[in-house]
Amino acid sequence: MTTVLAMNGPNLNLLGTREPGIYGSETLAEIVSRLRDHATSRNVELRDFQSNSEGDLVTMLHTSREDVDGVILNAGALTHYGVALRDAISGTGLPVVETHISNVHAREEFRKTSVIAPVCIGIVAGFGADSYLVAFEGLIRYLDKHSSDEA
Amino acid sequence: MTTVLAMNGPNLNLLGTREPGIYGSETLAEIVSRLRDHATSRNVELRDFQSNSEGDLVTMLHTSREDVDGVILNAGALTHYGVALRDAISGTGLPVVETHISNVHAREEFRKTSVIAPVCIGIVAGFGADSYLVAFEGLIRYLDKHSSDEA
Amino acid sequence: MTTVLAMNGPNLNLLGTREPGIYGSETLAEIVSRLRDHATSRNVELRDFQSNSEGDLVTMLHTSREDVDGVILNAGALTHYGVALRDAISGTGLPVVETHISNVHAREEFRKTSVIAPVCIGIVAGFGADSYLVAFEGLIRYLDKHSSDEA
Amino acid sequence: MTTVLAMNGPNLNLLGTREPGIYGSETLAEIVSRLRDHATSRNVELRDFQSNSEGDLVTMLHTSREDVDGVILNAGALTHYGVALRDAISGTGLPVVETHISNVHAREEFRKTSVIAPVCIGIVAGFGADSYLVAFEGLIRYLDKHSSDEA
Amino acid sequence: MTTVLAMNGPNLNLLGTREPGIYGSETLAEIVSRLRDHATSRNVELRDFQSNSEGDLVTMLHTSREDVDGVILNAGALTHYGVALRDAISGTGLPVVETHISNVHAREEFRKTSVIAPVCIGIVAGFGADSYLVAFEGLIRYLDKHSSDEA
Amino acid sequence: MTTVLAMNGPNLNLLGTREPGIYGSETLAEIVSRLRDHATSRNVELRDFQSNSEGDLVTMLHTSREDVDGVILNAGALTHYGVALRDAISGTGLPVVETHISNVHAREEFRKTSVIAPVCIGIVAGFGADSYLVAFEGLIRYLDKHSSDEA
Amino acid sequence: MTTVLAMNGPNLNLLGTREPGIYGSETLAEIVSRLRDHATSRNVELRDFQSNSEGDLVTMLHTSREDVDGVILNAGALTHYGVALRDAISGTGLPVVETHISNVHAREEFRKTSVIAPVCIGIVAGFGADSYLVAFEGLIRYLDKHSSDEA
Amino acid sequence: MTTVLAMNGPNLNLLGTREPGIYGSETLAEIVSRLRDHATSRNVELRDFQSNSEGDLVTMLHTSREDVDGVILNAGALTHYGVALRDAISGTGLPVVETHISNVHAREEFRKTSVIAPVCIGIVAGFGADSYLVAFEGLIRYLDKHSSDEA
Amino acid sequence: MTTVLAMNGPNLNLLGTREPGIYGSETLAEIVSRLRDHATSRNVELRDFQSNSEGDLVTMLHTSREDVDGVILNAGALTHYGVALRDAISGTGLPVVETHISNVHAREEFRKTSVIAPVCIGIVAGFGADSYLVAFEGLIRYLDKHSSDEA
Amino acid sequence: MTTVLAMNGPNLNLLGTREPGIYGSETLAEIVSRLRDHATSRNVELRDFQSNSEGDLVTMLHTSREDVDGVILNAGALTHYGVALRDAISGTGLPVVETHISNVHAREEFRKTSVIAPVCIGIVAGFGADSYLVAFEGLIRYLDKHSSDEA
Amino acid sequence: MTTVLAMNGPNLNLLGTREPGIYGSETLAEIVSRLRDHATSRNVELRDFQSNSEGDLVTMLHTSREDVDGVILNAGALTHYGVALRDAISGTGLPVVETHISNVHAREEFRKTSVIAPVCIGIVAGFGADSYLVAFEGLIRYLDKHSSDEA
Amino acid sequence: MTTVLAMNGPNLNLLGTREPGIYGSETLAEIVSRLRDHATSRNVELRDFQSNSEGDLVTMLHTSREDVDGVILNAGALTHYGVALRDAISGTGLPVVETHISNVHAREEFRKTSVIAPVCIGIVAGFGADSYLVAFEGLIRYLDKHSSDEA
Repeated sequence: MTTVLAMNGPNLNLLGTREPGIYGSETLAEIVSRLRDHATSRNVELRDFQSNSEGDLVTMLHTSREDVDGVILNAGALTHYGVALRDAISGTGLPVVETHISNVHAREEFRKTSVIAPVCIGIVAGFGADSYLVAFEGLIRYLDKHSSDEA
Repeated sequence: MTTVLAMNGPNLNLLGTREPGIYGSETLAEIVSRLRDHATSRNVELRDFQSNSEGDLVTMLHTSREDVDGVILNAGALTHYGVALRDAISGTGLPVVETHISNVHAREEFRKTSVIAPVCIGIVAGFGADSYLVAFEGLIRYLDKHSSDEA
Repeated sequence: MTTVLAMNGPNLNLLGTREPGIYGSETLAEIVSRLRDHATSRNVELRDFQSNSEGDLVTMLHTSREDVDGVILNAGALTHYGVALRDAISGTGLPVVETHISNVHAREEFRKTSVIAPVCIGIVAGFGADSYLVAFEGLIRYLDKHSSDEA
Repeated sequence: MTTVLAMNGPNLNLLGTREPGIYGSETLAEIVSRLRDHATSRNVELRDFQSNSEGDLVTMLHTSREDVDGVILNAGALTHYGVALRDAISGTGLPVVETHISNVHAREEFRKTSVIAPVCIGIVAGFGADSYLVAFEGLIRYLDKHSSDEA
Repeated sequence: MTTVLAMNGPNLNLLGTREPGIYGSETLAEIVSRLRDHATSRNVELRDFQSNSEGDLVTMLHTSREDVDGVILNAGALTHYGVALRDAISGTGLPVVETHISNVHAREEFRKTSVIAPVCIGIVAGFGADSYLVAFEGLIRYLDKHSSDEA
Repeated sequence: MTTVLAMNGPNLNLLGTREPGIYGSETLAEIVSRLRDHATSRNVELRDFQSNSEGDLVTMLHTSREDVDGVILNAGALTHYGVALRDAISGTGLPVVETHISNVHAREEFRKTSVIAPVCIGIVAGFGADSYLVAFEGLIRYLDKHSSDEA
Repeated sequence: MTTVLAMNGPNLNLLGTREPGIYGSETLAEIVSRLRDHATSRNVELRDFQSNSEGDLVTMLHTSREDVDGVILNAGALTHYGVALRDAISGTGLPVVETHISNVHAREEFRKTSVIAPVCIGIVAGFGADSYLVAFEGLIRYLDKHSSDEA
Repeated sequence: MTTVLAMNGPNLNLLGTREPGIYGSETLAEIVSRLRDHATSRNVELRDFQSNSEGDLVTMLHTSREDVDGVILNAGALTHYGVALRDAISGTGLPVVETHISNVHAREEFRKTSVIAPVCIGIVAGFGADSYLVAFEGLIRYLDKHSSDEA
Repeated sequence: MTTVLAMNGPNLNLLGTREPGIYGSETLAEIVSRLRDHATSRNVELRDFQSNSEGDLVTMLHTSREDVDGVILNAGALTHYGVALRDAISGTGLPVVETHISNVHAREEFRKTSVIAPVCIGIVAGFGADSYLVAFEGLIRYLDKHSSDEA
Repeated sequence: MTTVLAMNGPNLNLLGTREPGIYGSETLAEIVSRLRDHATSRNVELRDFQSNSEGDLVTMLHTSREDVDGVILNAGALTHYGVALRDAISGTGLPVVETHISNVHAREEFRKTSVIAPVCIGIVAGFGADSYLVAFEGLIRYLDKHSSDEA
Repeated sequence: MTTVLAMNGPNLNLLGTREPGIYGSETLAEIVSRLRDHATSRNVELRDFQSNSEGDLVTMLHTSREDVDGVILNAGALTHYGVALRDAISGTGLPVVETHISNVHAREEFRKTSVIAPVCIGIVAGFGADSYLVAFEGLIRYLDKHSSDEA
Repeated sequence: MTTVLAMNGPNLNLLGTREPGIYGSETLAEIVSRLRDHATSRNVELRDFQSNSEGDLVTMLHTSREDVDGVILNAGALTHYGVALRDAISGTGLPVVETHISNVHAREEFRKTSVIAPVCIGIVAGFGADSYLVAFEGLIRYLDKHSSDEA
């Protein structure tokens, strides 16, 4: 059975409680729950993890590399300078989809630079909380194709 | 009934015939056909258009703005310098999803800059030909939410 | 009799129908009509041309160089990257006035760069649809001075 | 009755006496006189002021803000670094047209940057001494439109 | 008895009369008066000076260097390019606190650069007209500490 | 009763033990104690927190947002790249004063860039350990003004 | 029999009629005719194509890829921003020689950047209209070597 | 007896398990063990520490400053942005040798920038796992020279 | 009889009273006096002028252009941003020698840029107060050569 | 009789012995020999010179300027920083063709900058060892045209 | 028997005679002698070469490539611009360790850039004259590992 | 007796024979002869040296450091990239005056950067061949002042 990790970086635990104009009014728990239902209906196990510390996110990727098939990662602000997170992605070899709730290209200049994008398999951004589901869709298609390649 | 335009820019008519390592072996016709089947199953009408000329793409957006609900746009190389295309997106007000077959962030430096991203609603990249379907998924969710807002 | 070409680049055919806050509510046809009346009162023949394609604009400059005395050019987004258009201006030797409806310097950073300005005789920007009439004023004065120089 | 201030910055008192290839052979007094005649024929009062000191230009804008309806400003070299002048424009709220005799974009690289342009209503450049008359035309049209808005 | 100079650069004489959203509704005279009361209560003599001209501000620093113990300087726009003002600060050796009414870092990009900051003893910004009092507080503490060092 | 959090980032626990030429000889405990006495005399409760981990600082802001009225933040080196901290400031909506012991503009080039400044209400720097008291002064004035606004 | 396409971009149809100081006095037709004679004498068929539109040049490369062995390409201004043209070159896999009449490195700064050079097999510039014949020489030698490699 | 700390930053716990082409096949434990044997033979006590969190590395430097004579630091990705780590090095005054397994200058562009190098005593890079031993060699020579200086 | 103007910009009136390590201990009056003696011995009349205001320096150049043969100019900080001063030099056509007491290239980075150097005939820097005499030597030789050219 | 110098810079003496994938397997002697045969057949005398030292190449250009009609120059790495070589080219006035074996634009970023290109008459790159023959072709055509101009 | 070349670039012949604060008081001869003793004890033959000319260093690498197993290279200032030296390293394929006496990263900004680092196997810097011995240590370990690979 | 070395870099041996518009019509021998006469009249011995090779110039500085009191250095193109020459100047500790015939700031952009200026005592540029005499004047004054300091 396929297992996917939905991993969220700093400040994403605030979702739903502040700045709904940018991030919507769903809490992270609600988003994850909705994503889990969708995953279950696709026969996929969903795990989730949130931390405000880059170190913890790095460690979670390390410990997940045997148990998890792919990762939906909303790295929050670490997207723009978290080189350690980047190295953890390439170091573990896990397929990761960079995911953002808002369209980061339509916000501040510095949010256009992603240090993790070059080591991710794909990017999904701008669909609100649905970005997680869209990213899930892309990841599952990627895993299907590559597992059949290997089979 | 919802109508979506899948619009492809320069060189995408070559899909499936060259550089399969980067772009896969499906032709554009096959991708569009697969996307149309998927759209039909979702009760969405799919139109498609491809041109190597920025002017034609701009004009197509203009003429589509009454008939079409949203656009999946793979602008090819124009992604990086087509400011007229950008202005056509913001000028028509159509919701557009920037779509790429490959992960553009993992390629040449200049491919990391998108002049159209800031005026698109979202971005999907890196899932091969499936990027079109993933983008479709995101666009439909966006349209559902916004049409119910307006209703 | 003096002949002036009012040439408009990509998306300017949308004038009056979208984003009136930036571009005003007059359509391009109305602006051209008003400009033609003004020109006629000054005994000047006005021709006009709009295209969304850089190639067509370049070709129009080529074919105009025998028939036209000067050009009012609103190049739209091509202002910022249309080097071919720039070369057409210097290649034909036509006196061209760069014209903008809005004050481009008060908008996005990239709109401050003009690749055509260095080969134009002058620049007029910021007066709304009246920019065309102001530019006409400048062009006529330029042509008067230079034709008397040559006489 | 409408009142317009023609304000000139550093070195423009040299007009007509040096570098006629770039700036023409009319003196500033002659240009202002010609502009005043034109203004009178349009029933507009023209005031003029020239100084080589940024501080004096800033103060002049302050003291003019009750008595003057708009400003034609040729800031000379201060165009490129006079942030205090810029703040005086936005601070007084006067409508100002940035005006240049030569096409600054066809000269040294550093003359392409204007720190005042973003707070001006419009820009006119490149028509020789006639730039002042062309700028006047734009300013009057702007004032007409906005005074009727307010009326 | 300690003497402090409150020196204000270009456009600060407009305080209270325009753009209250950014700069508040107190006039400069009212701010200085409030600051003087506060200084008197602390047994400090307050002098004040405002000019729109960098040269005058430079000269004021020169003539103050024997009579004044420290300076609260709101250099206005000169903050960003007044290198002569900077050299006057380091040339006179006066302790100067760079002071701003608004948080300059939250405004235009070019307002983040200060050419005078490296030669000032400290910076206070963002507290509205109260910034002068907060800066006074910092300056007095600095002077107390250093005068006791020298005693 | 008003509550203020004095939050210190990485390496500030070293205060008083190393490099007294730059940072002075008071320990962080002594500084906080002096600040608390001052706060008590103003009838303000002071809380304090120090961590070398960005994640912990982010979390502390999250948990403080209900209990605390404002924050004095010396982010240490995170000032220059801690985008997660920045997002936590804007995400919680707490009023934060960026505070530095030394004048960061007079040190290495990279210390002139602050990623948190644009989302803080104000900045205080350069007054040694007194910077905390000066920042406190600014914060209290800010809170007074805004609470009376809301009342 | 070997077939070579001489493809010319925007404004090159003006050759011989304007700016002979930079581009010489031969028309494009004369240059192509001279090149065809030379090609015939080498038993090579020469085709030629000129367009002012990037889209048409891209399409021409696509349709040529079965019929043509190599391309002499003077992309004119598109050399500096025509990424779609670049992608057409790498997408079709045709061997292309970037060709310029003038020495682009001795002209404006922006003409030193070529977006197509990295995907061409070689570059020839600066020999006036003879650049086409020199480029032909290089292309033929390249084709000889590679066809014998494949044989 | 001399004590040296071998400190490793994020992802270095993955050594030996992934990407052996870049980082070799020895695990971190094996490398440290080999380094400890070498240290023991030189009569030096070796301590070691690894963390994926910058905060923990900073704290470890703080707590080590009394017990340790020098540090071999492989900061991993933190090399490129860990300004807090840099401040911890200069704040504790410990002699640190920046150490890398691979030749960072032969990899991605951003890996050429080190924010910690200016506060380290020396740099060793490129010798695979042996870099630790080479760095040890350099550190010991440095300590010998400086302890005899102080004696 | 030849007449030379020694013109000094902002803060140079402080010479000899502060920062002797950089600028020496001679006052400006002493330097000018020494320069005048030297000039007299060479049968040259020396005039001198100092101002802290760019506007006054510009005006002085304007009024000098009939009476003076050449200028020794120490523009102080205006060297780096005084574009109006630059335009005054090229506008009056006076031969000007840029002169500095210290070697500006060995100081802060921003002091390496001179906006006036490109329009001066030559540069002398680094010889302390003697720079004025060395510059005088160069200017006299220049004037000798060019007056004999014209004779 | 026409005389041409084939001049080669640093490391080109290694041709044919190392990195044949980039530079081919012909030695420099073989290339020169092949070029000489070709020249002889065209009635041109070929001289050749190789040095690893910029100074020697400069001197060779100086001593050649009376005896040689033109130069084929492969400057190797000096292409990118040899400003002295550049000045020797413009100082001697010899017509020089910049020549490269590989397509320098398809290699490292820094190899795209040529300091000598702006003073050469033309550029030939990318045809392997044949680049010398192609460059010869261009140079001969240039010399023919210009000698007939002068005759 | 293994042979190592210690090669020193410009100005390193001055070692020990000037600026001992940066470079120490040992002469180059003494350093080489100490290095030779160490090499002999490791059964390695040491050759040495110093030149102030890049060309000679390039040539030395060429002639050494058959006789020498590896190189310790202190390129002095050529580290920062000697691209010919870089090409000689990659052209000969010799394993080279970039070596510096001082920590170049703690000095002027331009010394942080090394054009040779990307083609060296490793880097050693900052250990004074001992850097040569530390580099030797690294080189020998490299050679041991790779010769056993090939055996 | 004082001894001065006049040292000239690459291409300066061409003086007087080419490009007289920039460099004048005197040969280097004539300039040196004129400078020697001047020096003799001041009781100074003049030595001279010219080379096209940076290595030789570096070596000459080394060998001169015992015999020579100061250097007039026209480094030609090496001014802009000769870091080895720079290190030779600071390494030998000789007082060097950077000297240029033309005003380098009025030429190409890259000629505005001098890598040697920060380690020279002063700079003289723009006085044609007389620059050497003006530089001599500055150097002698410098030597007089410093020898009397030491006496």
